[in-house]
Amino acid sequence: MGEVPPTHPRYASLMARKLLTEAAAAGLLADSALIAHGRGEAFDYLLGERTCDAARNSIREIAGRLQEADWPIISVNGNAVALAADNLIRCAAAVPCDIEVNIYYRTPERMDALISKLNERKEVLSHEPNPEGWWPDWEQMSGEWQENIRDVQILGANPDGRIPGLEGPRAECCTEGILRSDVILVPLEDGDRCEALVAMGKTVCAIDLNPLSRTAKKATITIVDELTRCLPLLLEDLVDGSMEPNEDWDNEQNLREVVSEMLRILDDAP
Amino acid sequence: MGEVPPTHPRYASLMARKLLTEAAAAGLLADSALIAHGRGEAFDYLLGERTCDAARNSIREIAGRLQEADWPIISVNGNAVALAADNLIRCAAAVPCDIEVNIYYRTPERMDALISKLNERKEVLSHEPNPEGWWPDWEQMSGEWQENIRDVQILGANPDGRIPGLEGPRAECCTEGILRSDVILVPLEDGDRCEALVAMGKTVCAIDLNPLSRTAKKATITIVDELTRCLPLLLEDLVDGSMEPNEDWDNEQNLREVVSEMLRILDDAP
Repeated sequence: MGEVPPTHPRYASLMARKLLTEAAAAGLLADSALIAHGRGEAFDYLLGERTCDAARNSIREIAGRLQEADWPIISVNGNAVALAADNLIRCAAAVPCDIEVNIYYRTPERMDALISKLNERKEVLSHEPNPEGWWPDWEQMSGEWQENIRDVQILGANPDGRIPGLEGPRAECCTEGILRSDVILVPLEDGDRCEALVAMGKTVCAIDLNPLSRTAKKATITIVDELTRCLPLLLEDLVDGSMEPNEDWDNEQNLREVVSEMLRILDDAP
Repeated sequence: MGEVPPTHPRYASLMARKLLTEAAAAGLLADSALIAHGRGEAFDYLLGERTCDAARNSIREIAGRLQEADWPIISVNGNAVALAADNLIRCAAAVPCDIEVNIYYRTPERMDALISKLNERKEVLSHEPNPEGWWPDWEQMSGEWQENIRDVQILGANPDGRIPGLEGPRAECCTEGILRSDVILVPLEDGDRCEALVAMGKTVCAIDLNPLSRTAKKATITIVDELTRCLPLLLEDLVDGSMEPNEDWDNEQNLREVVSEMLRILDDAP
């Protein structure tokens, strides 16, 4: 796996797989996390492993909603941290907002491991003047940017609130994080919790590769795209800062466009 | 997971997931096995988690080919053993033929674990007069049947041959098993090895949920169906014994029919 060259046509997919198997070995993930990732891989295959136009529109809309929010928050699970810790922290810095670790199968060990990993990455990012060189104007904004990175709080260690309508530990959350939020970005969320968050009146911004999932259908705005591919675009829009929320956003229509794209690719494939 | 009732609409899928996470914990599977399973889950979703007509035709064709073969063999990997050890042994008894364990990431520990598991299950099955009660005429044939079960050899521990055109340990196989076979049933095979087996002139019968995969396209006959769902049907056809091979089998056409079914389901879904 370590020998895969960056020019390999499926490099991104193979690297994502590597990150997840390493995270599983390090105890960051629940048993079913790798299965969930594989399911996503298949839907991504049906998208041609590209960000489709409908997804690009959702990304812009979510950037606008996060920046207009009073209490924005990014909720992350094990797979999100394993795949995209750095860009999740960068997006939080750009909004700006905090990150709350909120996992389905909550154990103290996994919560500690995920929070530690995010804090470690935050520390590294807050010292990088121009991380990875992928951001053209990075150096111009680097002073303020480093401040923003340092200001991102990693919540979740001491949940003091509950999401109404959910049973057990998966309901636990932080008053200063998910509970008071008005706009919440939840990559890779489960359907039950997505529904419960919508029922609380929050604007739920989901990232999910399955356009037919309950999460995709119930969320206010859904990006049907691969997490590591769409986050750089979301970050770009957040740093740009000029996206305007569209109050008439039609998520059902957006999902229909994604399914049409999948139909087109599946029909052309054999 | 243990609390899922058999009446749950996704019972079979959840049980498959449980079998695989348990097998992973027991060291039977490679790192990427759960991801591969998840990918299959997504394609199965697109099939409506049903055996489509095209798959049913492939099952009949494969039953005919296995029974007409001079040296039939069933090649199994970790996922196949984890999901369907019993029905793979029953199918081998019905052909009759042997089973060879042949895994992509070969380690002595995993080979031992898989061969031991198959031998354990073979021992159990050879004492069951009417296993699980799902087979109506089981008792009538149980004497001969138990003999057939006992005659299934589990090969793979001492590979003494190589599949030409493949590098490394994944090429290793048994002269008395895969190497001399003329018809080979390979559930969940990887694309490289499928191609190499076809290049040897063998009739390759694949079981793969992705109709667009290299394995599905390169195999002589492909069953696009979930393993635990199609094996009871294959067993039924093998015990029936009246399936005739069709020398004009058009696998490309069969795959097109499967894709059409997926298109129909995807189009109806949202």
